[in-house]
Amino acid sequence: MTTDGNRPAQTPLRSWRDGDTKHAILEFVERVAAEVPIEERVAVFDNDGTLWCEKPLPIQLDFILRRFVAMAEADPALRGRQPWKAAYERDHEWLGRVLTEHYAGDDRNVRIVAGGILAAYDGISVEDFEARSDEFLRNTDHPTLGRGYLRCAYQPMIELLDYLAVNGFANYIASGGGRDFMRPISQEVYGIPRERVIGSTVALAYRDDAAGGTIFHKAELDYLDDGPEKPVRIWNRVGRRPLLAAGNSNGDIPMLHFSQHAAKPFLRLLVLHDDADREFAYTSGAERALEEAGRHGWTVVSVGDDWSTVF
Amino acid sequence: MTTDGNRPAQTPLRSWRDGDTKHAILEFVERVAAEVPIEERVAVFDNDGTLWCEKPLPIQLDFILRRFVAMAEADPALRGRQPWKAAYERDHEWLGRVLTEHYAGDDRNVRIVAGGILAAYDGISVEDFEARSDEFLRNTDHPTLGRGYLRCAYQPMIELLDYLAVNGFANYIASGGGRDFMRPISQEVYGIPRERVIGSTVALAYRDDAAGGTIFHKAELDYLDDGPEKPVRIWNRVGRRPLLAAGNSNGDIPMLHFSQHAAKPFLRLLVLHDDADREFAYTSGAERALEEAGRHGWTVVSVGDDWSTVF
Repeated sequence: MTTDGNRPAQTPLRSWRDGDTKHAILEFVERVAAEVPIEERVAVFDNDGTLWCEKPLPIQLDFILRRFVAMAEADPALRGRQPWKAAYERDHEWLGRVLTEHYAGDDRNVRIVAGGILAAYDGISVEDFEARSDEFLRNTDHPTLGRGYLRCAYQPMIELLDYLAVNGFANYIASGGGRDFMRPISQEVYGIPRERVIGSTVALAYRDDAAGGTIFHKAELDYLDDGPEKPVRIWNRVGRRPLLAAGNSNGDIPMLHFSQHAAKPFLRLLVLHDDADREFAYTSGAERALEEAGRHGWTVVSVGDDWSTVF
Repeated sequence: MTTDGNRPAQTPLRSWRDGDTKHAILEFVERVAAEVPIEERVAVFDNDGTLWCEKPLPIQLDFILRRFVAMAEADPALRGRQPWKAAYERDHEWLGRVLTEHYAGDDRNVRIVAGGILAAYDGISVEDFEARSDEFLRNTDHPTLGRGYLRCAYQPMIELLDYLAVNGFANYIASGGGRDFMRPISQEVYGIPRERVIGSTVALAYRDDAAGGTIFHKAELDYLDDGPEKPVRIWNRVGRRPLLAAGNSNGDIPMLHFSQHAAKPFLRLLVLHDDADREFAYTSGAERALEEAGRHGWTVVSVGDDWSTVF
C-alpha cells in the first residue's frame, strides 16, 4: 500500500474500466481532497460480497461448518442435532434452506445455527479465537475459484481502499461478519488496521489472573452488525457520519443512507454481482438495495462492466 | 501538540519533577521506542481523576444536575421526585449520600440517579447531545478552582499524552464517563481524536429519514465502562492489549492488570490525589487500587510530589 500523505496515486483504480462509475469515484475523491478536512474523511465498507467473495457460501460460514464437523467428530451425541448434523453429513441442502428461509423472513433455523455458533466458541480467549481464524484464512482454499481465501478479495476494491487512503481517508470495515474473525488479516489484505474493523461480535467478558487477565467469549450475542445496527456501530466506533459507504445487500441500506450529507461531498456504492463467468451472478438478498439505489442515486458498481479484473 | 513522527520531544514532561516516577516513564517510553512496532504502541487513560479533576463532583455530574434542574423547572411534577428533587433543591447532602452509599456497595440510589439520567436525554439525537456537551464544557466554570472546566485537565498528564504521541503511541481514553460527552473536546484538550474515546454510553438506535437518518439516545444503558468492562471495551475498540494504562480508582484495577505483558515493556500508573492545596486530597474509591499498586509494582503518581504544576 502506498500511503504517502495527500499526493494522488499516479494510476489509481487500474482495474476499474473507464466509465460513469470510475468517473464518479474520481470526482468524489477530488472534491473531498479539496473541500473536507482530513479528520472528516471516513469511508465504510461492508465485507462479504463488497470487499471479498461471499459465494457459494460466506467464508466465515465455511470456518464455522468445519468447527461443527470437528465438534461432531469429538462428540457423537451432536451428530443427531442441528446444526452439527447438517455439517457432519455435508447436508448442503439443509444449510441452503436456512438461507432461503432467512431471505423469505423465516429465521427459525437461523436461530438454531446461531445457537450452534455461540456454543462452538463458548469460553475461548480472544487470542485463541484469533489464532484459529488466522490459521483458517491463511490455509484454506475457496471451494470453486481455485485460490486461497485471502486471494478472494476483489482487486478493484483493494485499489479503491488504497486510493482513498492515499487521499487521507480512514477506511473502516463495517461488516455483518465477525469483527474478530477479520481482524487478523485486515491490515494485510485491505490495509485496514484492526482498530478500524467493525463487525458482529459475541459478548466478551474479562477474567482476572496472574498474567494480565483473559478476555473470553460468552455463549451470547453482543450485537449483529447488520441493517439499522450498522450506522449505530459506525457512530459508536468512529463518532462521525461517513462520506463514502459501500455495500452489496439489503443489510447495507441504512449504512448507505447514513452516508448522506447536506453540505459535503458523499458517495454511496452498491456492488452488483452480475458476472457468472469471473465470479458469481446473484441478486438475492439485494433486491431492496437495488431499488433504493435507483431511487436515491446510489452508484451501482457492476462487476461485469466496471471491473477489468475481479481478483 | 507536536506530532512529528518518532523524534523525541526536546523537553518532555516539563511539569513532572525529577524522581522515580518521571524516570520510570522516560525509561518505559525509550524501551518501547526501541523494541515495539509502532502499531502496537497503545496507551489507555481513565479520564475523571486521571486526566482531569473529578472533585468536588465529576464534571459530567454537574452537567446532568443542571439538566435535572431545567427539567424540574419545566415540569413541577418532577420537583417531588428524586433525583430531580435533590437537583432542584440543591440538596448536596442527598447527592453526597448516593456516592457514599455507592462506595459502601449500596447502589439503590445510584440506580435512581441512573434512571433519571436515562430519562433526561431519551430520544435526543447524537448531534444534539454533542452540541449540549460542547456548550456546557466550554462555558462552565469549576465550582471552586476558579477556572473553566476545559482548563481542569492536569497539565502533567497532557504533557505525558503529548510525549507518548510523539513517540508513536495511539492514546485512548477509557473512561467510566460518557463517551459522547467527552468526544467534542477530546482532540482540543488531550490531542485524542474522537474515534479513540472509549467510555460509557446509553443504547443508541437508528431511524431512517430523508436526510441521511438520525441516531438517537434510548432510555436504556448500553454499558457502563468501569471495572472488568474496561478491558473488554478496550479490546472491542482497539483489538490490542495496551502497553500503558493510567487510572486513579478501584474501577481502573482490571484495566491496569490487563496492561501486563510477558515479553514487552509495560507501565501501569495510578494517580494518587494527595495535594489538598493545589487540587484535592482523597483516596475514597481508590483503597483497593492502592493496595494492588503496592502488590503488583504499579507506579504511583503523587500529585503533591511528582507534579511541579497541576493545571
